[in-house]
Amino acid sequence: MDMEEKTLTKEYVFEGKILNMRKDTAQMPDGMVVDREVVEHPGGVGIALEDEEGRFCFVRQWRYAHGEVTLEFPAGKKEAGEDALTTAKREIVEETGYEGKDFVYLGKMYPTPAYDTEVVTFYYAKQGNFKGQHLDADEYINVERYTLDEMIEQCVKGEIPDAKTMSMVLLIKAKKERGEL
Amino acid sequence: MDMEEKTLTKEYVFEGKILNMRKDTAQMPDGMVVDREVVEHPGGVGIALEDEEGRFCFVRQWRYAHGEVTLEFPAGKKEAGEDALTTAKREIVEETGYEGKDFVYLGKMYPTPAYDTEVVTFYYAKQGNFKGQHLDADEYINVERYTLDEMIEQCVKGEIPDAKTMSMVLLIKAKKERGEL
Repeated sequence: MDMEEKTLTKEYVFEGKILNMRKDTAQMPDGMVVDREVVEHPGGVGIALEDEEGRFCFVRQWRYAHGEVTLEFPAGKKEAGEDALTTAKREIVEETGYEGKDFVYLGKMYPTPAYDTEVVTFYYAKQGNFKGQHLDADEYINVERYTLDEMIEQCVKGEIPDAKTMSMVLLIKAKKERGEL
Repeated sequence: MDMEEKTLTKEYVFEGKILNMRKDTAQMPDGMVVDREVVEHPGGVGIALEDEEGRFCFVRQWRYAHGEVTLEFPAGKKEAGEDALTTAKREIVEETGYEGKDFVYLGKMYPTPAYDTEVVTFYYAKQGNFKGQHLDADEYINVERYTLDEMIEQCVKGEIPDAKTMSMVLLIKAKKERGEL
């Protein structure tokens, strides 16, 4: 079955520092014309940094859109023209103070495929040298360490609503069981 | 450490059918004033419907923002004033044709906690009576069935980028192992 929706018109209704908002019209396979609201985001990364004791780095920070503090894998958004691995290598030092080494591609995630172009690329890395945290001026972050099993327990208890963190935990657990990590 | 960012100003720069976009200013704990771009979304649900053979219903559909077809757990957004369980009971019939029974709350997910207010509430249900699919005019959906282990395999292979589906697979797997499902 052909499912493609073909773009007929694109209108930018907001162009921000990080996000753009578009109001498109598209043609369905049966010819019907529909409205589509789309958020444009440059894309980001999530990084699972494991130390020699099998503990991973997580960051606890204020999430303005939800008005609460969350615990998540370190993450960040791509700068213009940056490939995902470069972003990952930059962000892991900025947020945790540690370099990553032996980076492995874990997978990708669409946070909200219905209306947002964002793609988050996941990496796994071993903990490397300590270089010191250097946060953006508008970031406050606490770094905490947990094993994978401790994180699964927190996910099951409903303490980790972050999509990227739950998705990465699934992939790391399954890849470790398969001997792929 | 106090991490709260206090809203100083809120400006709606776009009000759409589904999404709103806000441009806020907020005060950091140290007094610094920062810009925050926020997408407002009414929230949604994801439903894991299991049949008597241990297979779950998934929907294959066109995702306009990514220009591709994805395979995901059935899902939908809340109508105005609707509680999440009501949305789940309505959407599972609309998308798969089957009613759910014995609904169990699985957890919640923030797809993009950095800039989007959306909360997705997850439910698990047993497959009930067949009532017939009734899709929205702008939806084309194929229903497919897979076991949990088949879905984990597809996630590991990178075939399931949808955040809600990976997160729900993690929670169902862990809760089944703990005898909670």
